[in-house]
Amino acid sequence: MQGRIYIKDLKDNINKEVVIAGWVDVRRDQGKMVFFDMRDMTGRVQCVVLPSEVEAITKAKEMRPEWVLKVTGVVVLRPKANIKEGVVNGELEFKVNNIEVLSEAKELPFDMSLEGYNLELTTELDNRALVLRHPKVQAVFKVQETIIDSFREFMKQNMFFEFQAPSITPAVAEGGSEVFQVDYFDKKAFLTQSPQLYKQIVMTAFERVFSVNKVFRAEPSATTRHITEFVSLDAEMGFIDSWEDIRDMAEATARFILNKVKEKNSEHLKLLKSELPVMIEKTPTVSLTEAQQKIFEHFGRDVRGEKDLNSQDEREICEIIKKETGSDFVFVYGYYTRKKPFYVYPNSQNPEFNEGLDLLCRGLEWISGGRRINDYNQLMEHVKIWEMDPNKIKMFLEAFKYGAPPEGGFAFGAERMTMQILGLKNIREASMFPRDMNRIDEKLNSDGY
Amino acid sequence: MQGRIYIKDLKDNINKEVVIAGWVDVRRDQGKMVFFDMRDMTGRVQCVVLPSEVEAITKAKEMRPEWVLKVTGVVVLRPKANIKEGVVNGELEFKVNNIEVLSEAKELPFDMSLEGYNLELTTELDNRALVLRHPKVQAVFKVQETIIDSFREFMKQNMFFEFQAPSITPAVAEGGSEVFQVDYFDKKAFLTQSPQLYKQIVMTAFERVFSVNKVFRAEPSATTRHITEFVSLDAEMGFIDSWEDIRDMAEATARFILNKVKEKNSEHLKLLKSELPVMIEKTPTVSLTEAQQKIFEHFGRDVRGEKDLNSQDEREICEIIKKETGSDFVFVYGYYTRKKPFYVYPNSQNPEFNEGLDLLCRGLEWISGGRRINDYNQLMEHVKIWEMDPNKIKMFLEAFKYGAPPEGGFAFGAERMTMQILGLKNIREASMFPRDMNRIDEKLNSDGY
Repeated sequence: MQGRIYIKDLKDNINKEVVIAGWVDVRRDQGKMVFFDMRDMTGRVQCVVLPSEVEAITKAKEMRPEWVLKVTGVVVLRPKANIKEGVVNGELEFKVNNIEVLSEAKELPFDMSLEGYNLELTTELDNRALVLRHPKVQAVFKVQETIIDSFREFMKQNMFFEFQAPSITPAVAEGGSEVFQVDYFDKKAFLTQSPQLYKQIVMTAFERVFSVNKVFRAEPSATTRHITEFVSLDAEMGFIDSWEDIRDMAEATARFILNKVKEKNSEHLKLLKSELPVMIEKTPTVSLTEAQQKIFEHFGRDVRGEKDLNSQDEREICEIIKKETGSDFVFVYGYYTRKKPFYVYPNSQNPEFNEGLDLLCRGLEWISGGRRINDYNQLMEHVKIWEMDPNKIKMFLEAFKYGAPPEGGFAFGAERMTMQILGLKNIREASMFPRDMNRIDEKLNSDGY
Repeated sequence: MQGRIYIKDLKDNINKEVVIAGWVDVRRDQGKMVFFDMRDMTGRVQCVVLPSEVEAITKAKEMRPEWVLKVTGVVVLRPKANIKEGVVNGELEFKVNNIEVLSEAKELPFDMSLEGYNLELTTELDNRALVLRHPKVQAVFKVQETIIDSFREFMKQNMFFEFQAPSITPAVAEGGSEVFQVDYFDKKAFLTQSPQLYKQIVMTAFERVFSVNKVFRAEPSATTRHITEFVSLDAEMGFIDSWEDIRDMAEATARFILNKVKEKNSEHLKLLKSELPVMIEKTPTVSLTEAQQKIFEHFGRDVRGEKDLNSQDEREICEIIKKETGSDFVFVYGYYTRKKPFYVYPNSQNPEFNEGLDLLCRGLEWISGGRRINDYNQLMEHVKIWEMDPNKIKMFLEAFKYGAPPEGGFAFGAERMTMQILGLKNIREASMFPRDMNRIDEKLNSDGY
């Protein structure tokens, strides 16, 4: 917009006449004068219209929150007594000379002011389009943008190649009822649940690969932690010496992301009253068996020999590690081979356990990964033991038939990490347009939509 | 991998013993000595095993293309007479001391050497996992990576906010048979054909937004230009003065991408014998009507008054502009309002035509975009004229009900731009895992998959 400057740059234009544009945030009609806050994507400023500006004040008395304006005015410093400390543009205000209304707005269905905003999640989701304008809601997605973007940045720094994993897949290798079926012309196809097999394929050609792609889970449960569509951030790397290379890359990735969020989103964290978890210099690692032993010793709950960690176990091992080391993070590795997918690498000393791993934080899983089988014959053995149909993963098996380096990788969901970094209560808050079994934008109705 | 260096860095290690790892590319057994090329993600080098290295030469005689090795050896300069000019590492070779086999490979089904590789597209797609290792195939996806990444980079430079557009959508607003249906629990949902309405929604909150997301088209035609799943790069911006702001941003984006491809992928362009199109200082713009007049004048074909450009028209207007200005690119704007979607902005002087635009290059559409209606009442009028069900776009309409700035945006497909930049004959070459009505990885078979 010709001549427009951003509100964040007003401070560099004291006593100059400039043009700003944005939305009316709050308006206070004080009889003779009108005060209102203007908001653009860079910030907020208080505007004042004096009675002498006849045309402008007439418009200012008419207008309402969320009207879109182009305003000409002069940036003036406030008298010392009126300075608002710690508030952006708290030291200045914008003396309005002219108002051009770019768009009017209907009356708002609820209070959208910074302080007055306080909605139930259902109302929030029913009004997503409008609610996205609120700074607290925007803060969530600004943090999510940093998470996704810094993942890509770190991957590229480490020579990972970005590829586009497909969404539509043929017959499902691992079965599972949690898959969506698509009418594919006169045939059937499915929505991908994970780019796992594709990233392993691409790894055999590009060594180090990553992808940021949608995955889909037909979760028939309406919990606070399940949505049906989310963004999966995936990495896979060849030429590793052991599963510890995967662990270390996962840790470095999480650390990089946390640092970037700290650097770029401090304002958003403050607004949401979120505190970043503590990652110490070297995140502790325990085996599944060690974790179970620790839980037994500290809490007296005997889960030794259980085939996996349940959510109580995850909370408790995090609590123990936090006490012992100060770390909010802990790696758990070495799960039961037969309880996990066919491609996970079994420990060569003790093949009952595998070289899969999880990064837990504050009681919840953040990142999953591990070493994978790269030897074709071993892979084919597992295919048999796991009773899989090799025809349904033909392309995957071909990749390993023709030579593949020792390898592994990891993955995490953008929405879940956003939720956990910010301490949100419901994953729907961390998805801009969340889908679940009862909602796709609107609540699904009885018409079958 | 402990101690490993990349093949690109060998030149900095002349006469030193180092470790490299990668795939056997080509092997030449010359009786006493064995020569083979090693390939990692950074390059290629010729290795030589002398008869004195008894263990190594035994292994070298056994191994075959695509075996994965970890090799210890000394980097030596070739005698002047043996230097290969213009080839990476052409001045050196790798004298092998020790070979560790990390993975064997089955015999290849076809010649994978740089020179010998020459497959029909069908065979290529049937063997995608293996074929991805070929430098010419890799070059395509390296260029695609640059296209997508430089789009994001340019957007961020210009303060666009990145959001994640959804893939699963509720009832389809604009109808159309080319939409895939998903079994959504006991209800019906659809795969998105475009993030158009979502990006407009998010624009009303964040001003400038972009997304890189999959879109889906149930194209029942097996042409060289259609796949059912592709990556859509979308931008939308508020506070424009006119459609020309959109045009200029689209041009700047295309220019940025072309420059990045030139800078980062010169080697890949060379390998694929691709020449970048010429973008002159200011890309010419013609209206639909002007384009039709020019075609009439230059080619004697009277398409004046036709409601759109067909593909011959697109080729001819590009040819004319190329002759007149040297530009491979041309903008066409001002299409028939009623022939385009309801949200496109009608020209206020002459509302029969709209303010939509296309960027054409070498006869093909690269980018589509234009100004959109931001006034709620005007939008509702169009909804009525276009006979749309407002309930099916409720969230979209809500966004505009509460104040939206003058705005517009544009979009393009990553695969199509890759194809056009590289002059590929079939869009399937520009999609790593292309899906069409007959193929999802494998050819779809009669079992209904």
